[in-house]
Amino acid sequence: MRIALDAMGGDHAPEVTVAGAIEAVSEYDFDVVLVGDRDILADSLRDKKYPSGRISVYHASEVVAMDDQASVAIRKKKDSSVRKAIELVKEGSADAAVSAGHSGVTMATALFVLGKLPNVDRPAIATKMPSLEGFFILLDAGANVDCKPENLKQFSLMGSAYAETVYGVNNPRVGLLSIGEEDTKGNELTKEAFKLIKTLDINFTGNIEGKDIFYGGADVVVCDGFIGNIVLKVAEGLAESIIKMLKREVARAATGRIGYLMLKPAIKGFRKQTDYTEHGGAPLLGINGICLISHGRSTSKAIKNALRTASEMAQCRVHEAVARSLDLKNKSHKNG
Amino acid sequence: MRIALDAMGGDHAPEVTVAGAIEAVSEYDFDVVLVGDRDILADSLRDKKYPSGRISVYHASEVVAMDDQASVAIRKKKDSSVRKAIELVKEGSADAAVSAGHSGVTMATALFVLGKLPNVDRPAIATKMPSLEGFFILLDAGANVDCKPENLKQFSLMGSAYAETVYGVNNPRVGLLSIGEEDTKGNELTKEAFKLIKTLDINFTGNIEGKDIFYGGADVVVCDGFIGNIVLKVAEGLAESIIKMLKREVARAATGRIGYLMLKPAIKGFRKQTDYTEHGGAPLLGINGICLISHGRSTSKAIKNALRTASEMAQCRVHEAVARSLDLKNKSHKNG
Repeated sequence: MRIALDAMGGDHAPEVTVAGAIEAVSEYDFDVVLVGDRDILADSLRDKKYPSGRISVYHASEVVAMDDQASVAIRKKKDSSVRKAIELVKEGSADAAVSAGHSGVTMATALFVLGKLPNVDRPAIATKMPSLEGFFILLDAGANVDCKPENLKQFSLMGSAYAETVYGVNNPRVGLLSIGEEDTKGNELTKEAFKLIKTLDINFTGNIEGKDIFYGGADVVVCDGFIGNIVLKVAEGLAESIIKMLKREVARAATGRIGYLMLKPAIKGFRKQTDYTEHGGAPLLGINGICLISHGRSTSKAIKNALRTASEMAQCRVHEAVARSLDLKNKSHKNG
Repeated sequence: MRIALDAMGGDHAPEVTVAGAIEAVSEYDFDVVLVGDRDILADSLRDKKYPSGRISVYHASEVVAMDDQASVAIRKKKDSSVRKAIELVKEGSADAAVSAGHSGVTMATALFVLGKLPNVDRPAIATKMPSLEGFFILLDAGANVDCKPENLKQFSLMGSAYAETVYGVNNPRVGLLSIGEEDTKGNELTKEAFKLIKTLDINFTGNIEGKDIFYGGADVVVCDGFIGNIVLKVAEGLAESIIKMLKREVARAATGRIGYLMLKPAIKGFRKQTDYTEHGGAPLLGINGICLISHGRSTSKAIKNALRTASEMAQCRVHEAVARSLDLKNKSHKNG
């Protein structure tokens, strides 16, 4: 098993990417190919300790900048680190690619190099989020800001197959994020999508409201990428703010300092549940290969975990499972 | 000052509406008109203690049911409690109306009876939400599920005037909820709205991301009603889930039970900040009068606070302030 890492992508590359790769090969049983400028990477690796032969460097002369346009980056930066990392997957030299760089460019490059699965119009980012019952998969978390009902239908199929294949959820409950449980509630997009999704051979449980997603009301929550990204960021910001507010309240309470000390382990445990660095990256579902997108602010721990998540997805060949599911469900849909 | 309360609206009406009215007149300096079936309300008021003459009953023979359609309710239930309450505002017999009933019907009725302010195409629900710096106003929180850029522009103007008039925020910072700070980020709707809003004579600070709204990044956060309602519900659900997760973590920690006891006052203080019952209701901005929408599950405390909030809005004649602002800004926009 070999994972290609865009070593030049992310706010703190290549320091954290190289450190994350070293942590990953030290802890887990797969190899990492660092893709990027060979001199810079040789420098970063110098004097570092890691299992010999488990990290290799693959040269790429260019780097995508955060203000590059996706279309331009694809046309003009053919030797970028993210492009080369994904090409290694395409040619079979790596089982999956991970990038913490410009997510728009990563998506466009994955689409361009690996192509889409049959029956998919738009790939989606599938993010794992914590709930009181464990977790749920939110998709699309930001790949498509404007969607058609047909897109949401495909996200439902992909999300269901993904939850089942990668996380072993049996017959995943798929909910459509909306503003009321009744099928007449929603905006034009979700009302049309509802009609399409309910014809599918998946466990569609209808609309789900924002307040119920964290209570474990569905295993897969489907929405367009604009709303998905906002929900993701609202949850991230609110969780942090709530911890800050609680700390302030604890400090204010009579039991003050002691209360805070007692709260600390709880906050740590809670953070572990909600911390994006714990899984480290979200896959782009619907492309013909495995590519994970990591947070631009990823720490080495996030990179390590993204590499591990990528290896797990490569292990169960998630893209093939999603493709099979799309093929089957579409057939049963046409015949049914 | 006299507030009309739809005494038959809400999941637990008329018990909680009557109780809320009694709490309000006992605590604050305004009168309440209970609108609804006179016999039922006389029954509910019997043997209750409250300052005499501060609560009156106005008869309405019909009640809107939660499964009534807005358009049908307006045509067929002309003597409904919510309709009569709003008509009291129209004819000047009450300064504001409050309803915890079917929010769609309340909106449609307010629009039908009171009419829109000049230069407003669609009214919006403005909700106060807590942030680390105090609070922010989110609009639209659910009145319009599908919006045009022009609607978001008007929400910006109304929200700015509202924050300034009711909450005394000087030159409120208005942010457009989107998925990136750059003005090129967003979906079709927000990108077009951005262009319109930036021409206005308000303190528009550009796009704001979901993670920044709870950090106090803006005083007014503008979005369409579908997203606004989802953000509201996500925040409500997540805040409750986080408290549950934290309690679980505290119970798990070595300091267990003592930690929980120490955490309790903090959670109580925190809940007070985030509890919707503290303000009790959200105004419908853009209509020619004052009408507040309360949660269907309102407790008597929520009703009491909604009545108080309504009286505060009537005190500063918020609809007139919003109208003046819309008029001024539109003029300066046309001349500018």
